[in-house]
Amino acid sequence: GARTVALVNVVDSPLADTVDHVIPLLAGPETSVAATKSYIATLSAIAQIVGAWTQDTSFNNGLSKLPNLLTSALDQDWLGASDTIAKSDGLYVIGRGPAFAIAQEAALKFKETSSLHAEAFSAAEVKHGPMALVSKTFPMLVFSQQDASRDSVEDFLTEMRGKTDNLFAAETGYADIKGHLPVVEDIHPLLAPIAMIQTFYTLAENVALARGCNPDAPPHLSKVTETH
Amino acid sequence: GARTVALVNVVDSPLADTVDHVIPLLAGPETSVAATKSYIATLSAIAQIVGAWTQDTSFNNGLSKLPNLLTSALDQDWLGASDTIAKSDGLYVIGRGPAFAIAQEAALKFKETSSLHAEAFSAAEVKHGPMALVSKTFPMLVFSQQDASRDSVEDFLTEMRGKTDNLFAAETGYADIKGHLPVVEDIHPLLAPIAMIQTFYTLAENVALARGCNPDAPPHLSKVTETH
Repeated sequence: GARTVALVNVVDSPLADTVDHVIPLLAGPETSVAATKSYIATLSAIAQIVGAWTQDTSFNNGLSKLPNLLTSALDQDWLGASDTIAKSDGLYVIGRGPAFAIAQEAALKFKETSSLHAEAFSAAEVKHGPMALVSKTFPMLVFSQQDASRDSVEDFLTEMRGKTDNLFAAETGYADIKGHLPVVEDIHPLLAPIAMIQTFYTLAENVALARGCNPDAPPHLSKVTETH
Repeated sequence: GARTVALVNVVDSPLADTVDHVIPLLAGPETSVAATKSYIATLSAIAQIVGAWTQDTSFNNGLSKLPNLLTSALDQDWLGASDTIAKSDGLYVIGRGPAFAIAQEAALKFKETSSLHAEAFSAAEVKHGPMALVSKTFPMLVFSQQDASRDSVEDFLTEMRGKTDNLFAAETGYADIKGHLPVVEDIHPLLAPIAMIQTFYTLAENVALARGCNPDAPPHLSKVTETH
């Protein structure tokens, strides 16, 4: 009896046929197997719904700036991380709170486009068993936004700098620290991850090409996957 | 305002102090960092609660046999998978439905005790992006129980046999197929994963030792992890 809503880029898809309401993403044709612009458009559309529901002034002001900030996100340069990641057998992608969602997307994109075993963890979970994999050369990519999680993520980063030499952190501030990845500034913390994943996609493409992979046509994958 | 219940092996733990009701697991001291018997005891205790709530006769009959079946689980031999997994850089652990829970536990145990990058997926999810990692030598460990998911997991196994030579499947039947891992028979499908993880722990220990790891003392880990 629940009301169902689908956010879809292809409005005549089977998913659209099974729900009560369709919200078209209007991202244009996604020709690559690994979706990117439709992912960002989905997060942005969900943010619009949240803004309409909450009527939160600060959030809605932030939302009005998002298109410009997504353009700025394309100007941020994370390619300094490319060589190290491209040479790795695997890595962890870390976030906490809203950034955990894009950590999962980033890990999936590394798998799809670089055949690289990236796995996502919340900064609150990774200090358990998963730490057993972390050696001095094991790379980690950390996304951090400016909210209540910030202090704990900073503590985590400080601790990890003692365990691995290949730590990359996307966050406001700390521009002079090794592995720093620049982010767009003055963005609402709930929207910061959307801009970060935009910047990330350029890194992902670069890593894929450095590994000799075609990021648009991953092995074993097709645009439609049937699951029963 | 929710009522909180904790299943704990250490009844004076901080977790026990914060909840309304404590259910002691009585598994005895867990001296290894990587918990095993307290994991099985937790699943068994949850199953007892489910049995008491549902009054499902078939499930409760199955539950009464569980202690004996867990003993039989220790007699199942999965060590044929040990060499291949020990030599791998990583692997996927797959389940669907209730077996997905133990797939996550198995992946974590491989990380903790063997510093091996194992990641868990539902058989319903892995056919998307994660497949890009699967080569002819990439190992997969699949847990399957006899329920509504069985046919789709069989289809998945058939498809994977064309993609990798290192497929290991714990399931009833198919004893003559390469990579078959024997399981205890005549067990309720919802309880089958508990017996499988019991058998798995012997494999995990063997893989850890083959990789020169001490399964009782993983790197970077301690019994208590503080997260803020």
